[in-house]
Amino acid sequence: MKSVAVRNIPRAESQYIEALQSQGVATVHEAQGRTGLLRPYMRPVFGGARIAGSATTVLAQPGDNWMLHVAMELVKPGDILVVAVTADNTDGMFGELLARSAKAQGVVGLVIDAGVRDVRDLTEIGFPVWSRAISAKGTVKATPGSVNVPVICAGALVTPGDIVVADDDGVVIVPRLHAAEVADKGRRREEDEAVKRERFKSGELGIDMYDMHDSLREAGLVYVDSGDDLEP
Amino acid sequence: MKSVAVRNIPRAESQYIEALQSQGVATVHEAQGRTGLLRPYMRPVFGGARIAGSATTVLAQPGDNWMLHVAMELVKPGDILVVAVTADNTDGMFGELLARSAKAQGVVGLVIDAGVRDVRDLTEIGFPVWSRAISAKGTVKATPGSVNVPVICAGALVTPGDIVVADDDGVVIVPRLHAAEVADKGRRREEDEAVKRERFKSGELGIDMYDMHDSLREAGLVYVDSGDDLEP
Amino acid sequence: MKSVAVRNIPRAESQYIEALQSQGVATVHEAQGRTGLLRPYMRPVFGGARIAGSATTVLAQPGDNWMLHVAMELVKPGDILVVAVTADNTDGMFGELLARSAKAQGVVGLVIDAGVRDVRDLTEIGFPVWSRAISAKGTVKATPGSVNVPVICAGALVTPGDIVVADDDGVVIVPRLHAAEVADKGRRREEDEAVKRERFKSGELGIDMYDMHDSLREAGLVYVDSGDDLEP
Amino acid sequence: MKSVAVRNIPRAESQYIEALQSQGVATVHEAQGRTGLLRPYMRPVFGGARIAGSATTVLAQPGDNWMLHVAMELVKPGDILVVAVTADNTDGMFGELLARSAKAQGVVGLVIDAGVRDVRDLTEIGFPVWSRAISAKGTVKATPGSVNVPVICAGALVTPGDIVVADDDGVVIVPRLHAAEVADKGRRREEDEAVKRERFKSGELGIDMYDMHDSLREAGLVYVDSGDDLEP
Amino acid sequence: MKSVAVRNIPRAESQYIEALQSQGVATVHEAQGRTGLLRPYMRPVFGGARIAGSATTVLAQPGDNWMLHVAMELVKPGDILVVAVTADNTDGMFGELLARSAKAQGVVGLVIDAGVRDVRDLTEIGFPVWSRAISAKGTVKATPGSVNVPVICAGALVTPGDIVVADDDGVVIVPRLHAAEVADKGRRREEDEAVKRERFKSGELGIDMYDMHDSLREAGLVYVDSGDDLEP
Amino acid sequence: MKSVAVRNIPRAESQYIEALQSQGVATVHEAQGRTGLLRPYMRPVFGGARIAGSATTVLAQPGDNWMLHVAMELVKPGDILVVAVTADNTDGMFGELLARSAKAQGVVGLVIDAGVRDVRDLTEIGFPVWSRAISAKGTVKATPGSVNVPVICAGALVTPGDIVVADDDGVVIVPRLHAAEVADKGRRREEDEAVKRERFKSGELGIDMYDMHDSLREAGLVYVDSGDDLEP
Repeated sequence: MKSVAVRNIPRAESQYIEALQSQGVATVHEAQGRTGLLRPYMRPVFGGARIAGSATTVLAQPGDNWMLHVAMELVKPGDILVVAVTADNTDGMFGELLARSAKAQGVVGLVIDAGVRDVRDLTEIGFPVWSRAISAKGTVKATPGSVNVPVICAGALVTPGDIVVADDDGVVIVPRLHAAEVADKGRRREEDEAVKRERFKSGELGIDMYDMHDSLREAGLVYVDSGDDLEP
Repeated sequence: MKSVAVRNIPRAESQYIEALQSQGVATVHEAQGRTGLLRPYMRPVFGGARIAGSATTVLAQPGDNWMLHVAMELVKPGDILVVAVTADNTDGMFGELLARSAKAQGVVGLVIDAGVRDVRDLTEIGFPVWSRAISAKGTVKATPGSVNVPVICAGALVTPGDIVVADDDGVVIVPRLHAAEVADKGRRREEDEAVKRERFKSGELGIDMYDMHDSLREAGLVYVDSGDDLEP
Repeated sequence: MKSVAVRNIPRAESQYIEALQSQGVATVHEAQGRTGLLRPYMRPVFGGARIAGSATTVLAQPGDNWMLHVAMELVKPGDILVVAVTADNTDGMFGELLARSAKAQGVVGLVIDAGVRDVRDLTEIGFPVWSRAISAKGTVKATPGSVNVPVICAGALVTPGDIVVADDDGVVIVPRLHAAEVADKGRRREEDEAVKRERFKSGELGIDMYDMHDSLREAGLVYVDSGDDLEP
Repeated sequence: MKSVAVRNIPRAESQYIEALQSQGVATVHEAQGRTGLLRPYMRPVFGGARIAGSATTVLAQPGDNWMLHVAMELVKPGDILVVAVTADNTDGMFGELLARSAKAQGVVGLVIDAGVRDVRDLTEIGFPVWSRAISAKGTVKATPGSVNVPVICAGALVTPGDIVVADDDGVVIVPRLHAAEVADKGRRREEDEAVKRERFKSGELGIDMYDMHDSLREAGLVYVDSGDDLEP
Repeated sequence: MKSVAVRNIPRAESQYIEALQSQGVATVHEAQGRTGLLRPYMRPVFGGARIAGSATTVLAQPGDNWMLHVAMELVKPGDILVVAVTADNTDGMFGELLARSAKAQGVVGLVIDAGVRDVRDLTEIGFPVWSRAISAKGTVKATPGSVNVPVICAGALVTPGDIVVADDDGVVIVPRLHAAEVADKGRRREEDEAVKRERFKSGELGIDMYDMHDSLREAGLVYVDSGDDLEP
Repeated sequence: MKSVAVRNIPRAESQYIEALQSQGVATVHEAQGRTGLLRPYMRPVFGGARIAGSATTVLAQPGDNWMLHVAMELVKPGDILVVAVTADNTDGMFGELLARSAKAQGVVGLVIDAGVRDVRDLTEIGFPVWSRAISAKGTVKATPGSVNVPVICAGALVTPGDIVVADDDGVVIVPRLHAAEVADKGRRREEDEAVKRERFKSGELGIDMYDMHDSLREAGLVYVDSGDDLEP
C-alpha cells in the first residue's frame, strides 16, 4: 500500500451541510434511498450530539495513529475526521490531546472504526466522537497509511469531501455531488412526516393511513378471531 | 410460513401486572425459578424505565416492519409490543412516528429483537424500548409475518398475553397463568430481601448468614494463610 | 482444580494507590509500558467513577457466585473485588445485596468478567462496577472456586494484591511491586501532557511538535496536491 | 426452575421420520413454511451425515452435564438428544464415553447448544453431532436440570417427540403432529425440483422459468446498457 | 435505493486472470500492496479450490435472492458472482439449483456476504463458494436490488469487472486496470519466494536472511540469557 | 513495554511430553484439574494432528510478525511456538515460508492467537497450526515485542518451557513443574476410562455406573410419567 497524503479536497457548500445536519441521520439515510449508513456498531461516546461536515479521511494501520497527525495538518474548519483501519482493531487511537488539537483546527467531530480513550475528557470538552470501542490501549507511530484517499469505514465507502452526518442513531455518508438533491428530498420528507406525526398522535392507524388492507390480504395475511383458530 | 393476525388474546389481571412491575426483572426472574429471561443483548434505549404489560407479539421478516402496523391495530391499552424476527437482524424497524402511534393506542413499551432509530425522540417522548441494536437503517413493507402467534424473542418463548416485565436489568416473560403465583412469590422474596438488606448493611457476612462454612468445606474448599502455602 | 481461599495477601502502600487513582487508566497504562489492560468489553455500569485499590481475586464457576461470599470474608477496606470465571459467561453474579455487603466491608468496587444485575440499585448506592454484561440471570451456589489465587480476568493476569485502576476508559492492573515506579512515571507523564495540552490548544500541530516530517518521508509518505494526482 | 424428568413421550411414525431424513434440512425447512430452523452457528462435528429422529430433550445448566446421564436412561432407539443450556456456554459437555453410551442405547445423534470434545473419537465412532463449539473444557455434575420438557435450543422451540432433521446445512425441527403433512409437501417439492434441475442444467434462466420480467419491472428494476449510464 | 441492472461491463484480459489465479490470494494481496482483501469471516464451503474471474456484482436485500436470478441473465462464462447484502444477514440465499444454473452459464464460483445451503450438493457438483455462513434458511423474492453496480462486500469495494481471486486463504479483489501490473509483481514475488524457500528449508534464519539484527537493536530489542535476568 | 528476547529457557523431560501427547487435550485438561485450556476459538488449520512440546513464547504487536523471526533463532527441536498479540487481531502473521523455516529448526507446531495464511501449503507440508483465524492479510516488521516472556494466549497464561498439548479438541498448557504429576494422573484416568468404555459399550447406564439416583433425588429431580403431569 502506497502512503499518500492529499493536500486539497473538494468540499460541499455549507448550506447543504447545515440542512443535512438539521435533518439528522435517519431522515438523510431515507432521503438518499437507504444507502451510505455505517454499521450499527459505531456508537457515540456521549449522547445528544448531532453534527455534519466534510470528510477528511484517514487510512491507518491497526494500533498506529501516526496518520492522525498528518490529517490534522490538512483539515479545514468544519471538517469531520473519518478514520478507517486496515484490519479490525479496537485500540484507543484518539484521546484528549488529539481532541484539543482537533478543536483548535476547527474539526467538528471524529468517526473512527477503532477505539478511543479519555472519554471523560472528550465529554467535558464536548468533542463528539463515534467509535467502534472505548479502550485505553495506546498506539504506536511506526507505519504510515494515507490521508484523503477513499476509504471503507465500518462498511461504507467514504470519499474525501463527502458529507458526514452523525447523531445518536449512527453515521451516514452523503456523496458530495448528491448533497443538494438529498438535502431537498430530506426537507420534503420532514414536511411529510410532520403531517403524519399529527395524524398518528391523534390515534389514526398506519394501516389506514397507508391503506394497507388490500395489499396485506393479497400478500396472504389472514385474520382469525382467536389463537384457538390456529392450526395445531 | 402462513401469515396470520389473531384479533383477540387473553390478558392477565392488572393487579398481577402491577405487582410484577413493582418487583422488577431480577426479582420476578428469581420468583419464577430463573426462567423466562431474554438474552442479555437486549438493552434499554434509555435508562431508568420499569414497565410491565401484556404481550402483543409480532413475527416479522428481517428488514420489514409491515406487521408492526397490523399489530398497532390489535393492541389494547397497557400492552407491550414484543417483536421477533425470522433471522438475526439489526435494522431500525421502529422509530419516532410508530412510537407516537403506539402511545396514542396506549401501548406502554416495545421489546424488539432487532434495531430501532430516532432514539433521541424516543427518549424525549418517554416511550421505553428494549432492543438488540440502534440503527438508522430503514425497512421495507414487502413480506407479511404474523401478529399474536407464539414467538421466540431473544431466546425466550413469548405467548400472546404473557406478561412482559422490563427494566435496566433486561426483560423477563411470565406466562399468563403463572402471574398470580409468581407475583406472590416475588412479594415474599422482597420481604425476605428487606431483612437481609439490613443485615448486610450492618456488616454481617453472607457466609455466616447463609451458614456456608460446612458446605464449603464439604465441597472441598481449603483455607491457607498465605499464597506461599500454595503448591508451586 | 483445587479450591483454595488465601487469607492474607500483601497490599501496596496507599500513597501509590492514590496516585494511580488520580492519574486514571489511560495514563497508568502508558506509564507502565502499555501493559496490564483488560479487554475493552469490560464497561462501567455507570459513568464517571474512577477508583483504585488492591485486588482481592475470585475464580468462580460460570453461573455460580458462591466464592463471592468467601471473598467478602477476606477483603480489607480499600480492596477491589476482581472476579474471573472458568468459562465465558454473562450471568448476573452480583447484585444489590452483595453490593450492600461489599460497601459494609469497605470494598471500593467490583471488576467482573461476567454479568451483574440490579443496576439501578448499584447506581443509586454508588457502588462502581465494571462488567462484561448486564443480566438478571441468577446464579447457583454449587461448585467452589478459589479466592486470592492468580487469575486471568478479561485477558489480563491479576495477582492478589495487585493494584486495580478503573474508570470510564476501562480497567488496568499494576503489579504491586511496580506501584511506586509506575506512579512516578505517570506523574511525569501528566506533567509532560500539561505542557503539550497548552500547545495543542494554541493550534500547534503534532506533526511539528513531534518533528515527524522527516520520519514520515523516510517511511514512504508522499504528499500530492489533489486526488487527481493519484494513480488510477 | 423445578427439575423434572418425563419418562414417556409420544413419538412420530417411523415412515415419516425416514421420509424427512431422505429429504434433508433445506427441503424440510421449505416444506414446512420456512420455520423450525436452529441458528446457523450449529455446525456438524464431521461432514456428510444426515440423520432424523425423535427428540429427547435436555435442559442443562452451563458447564454441567448431569442431565445427559438422566436422559440416557429415558431414550429409545432412534432418538436424537437435543440439549439446551440455561445460559450461553461452550463447555465440552459430551465426549467419547457418552457417545459410546448413546450408541449402545440406540441414539442416532446429538444436537447440543454448547460444546463437545473428543471429536476425533466421535468421528471414528461415526456418532454424528451438531454443536455450537468444540471445547475440551470439562463439566461438573452439580445442579439438576430437566429431561423431556419443551426447550429452546439455538433459537428454536423443541417439544419432546418432535422430529429432528440434521445434515450439513444445519438442523430443523418438525412438530410431531405436522410430520405427515411436511413429509408429503417435501416429497412434492423434491419432484418439482427434479424438473427444475434439468431445466437449469440445460441453461434455462430462472428469470424466464419463474417469469419474473414483469414483476421486476413493476418493482422498479431498470436495465441500463453500461455503468456509464448510471447517475454520478 | 434505485434498482438498476447494468447489462455490459468491462472485463480484464484472460491472461492476467489466469496469472492471478495461479499465484493465489496471499501472493496477489501482497503484490498489490496489501489491499483488496475481504474480511476473514469469508470461508470456502469446501477446501482446495482456487479460482479467479471477473466480478458480476449483486446488491441484495437481506433474506431476498431475487437479484441472483437477474445476475444469472447477465453473466458471461468465466465470471464470479459477488453478492453484497444491504444489512448483515446469514440466510441461505444460494443452493443447488442456482449452482446448476450458474454452472450452465459458465460461472466459475460465488462469493457471498451471506449464507448458502445444499452444501453437500455444492461439494459434489464442485461449484466453489465463499460465504459468511451456511444456513438452510430460505429467502423471498420481494424487493429488488441491483446488478453490476459497485458494492462493498465483506469490507472490500468491488467494481463490476474487477478480478476476484479466491482460495483457502480467503478472497481478494484486484481492480481491473491494475491486473497486468499486479500479475507482474506477483510473478516476481513468486520467483523471489522460490529462492527464499530453499534457503529456509536449508535452515537459514530469517533474522540473518533479512539482516534484522541492527534494526531490532535500534528498535530497542534486548537479549538476556535467562528469564531470571528479567526485572521482577 | 520493554522488548526482550530470552535466550535460554528450561524445558520438561521428553518422557513427560510424550506421555501428555499420547493422552491428548481432553484427558490432560481433566488430569490437571480442568485448568490451562485456551479459549475454544483456537482451531486447527487441518484436522487429525496431535502434538506436544515445550513452549517458546512470542509477544507480538497486531499485524507485525517481526518477533517470529527472533523466536526462530531461539527455538530448539521439539518446541512449539506460542504467539500472543497485544490486541485482538486476525492478520495472517505466519505462512508457508515461516513454516519451512520452523520445520528446518525442528519446531513441531504453532499456536497463535491471530491469523495464518497459505493454509493449503501448511496442510501439504504437514506443519500443524492452531489459530484464531485464517487470513491472507500480510504483516509489517515495524515494532518489536518479546520472546520467551510469560504471555497470555487465548485466555491462558503460558510461561516459556511450559508444555503445550494440542489436538482436534483445542490446546492446553501444562506448567513445566507439574508435567510428571499430570502425566501420571492422565495415565490413571486413561486406565479408568478404558474400563468405563467397555461398560458403556455393553449398555450400562452412567446413572447406574456413577450411582446418581440418590444424589439426583436429593438435588430435587422429580420423575413424572408423562408431559401431561407437568404443571400448566
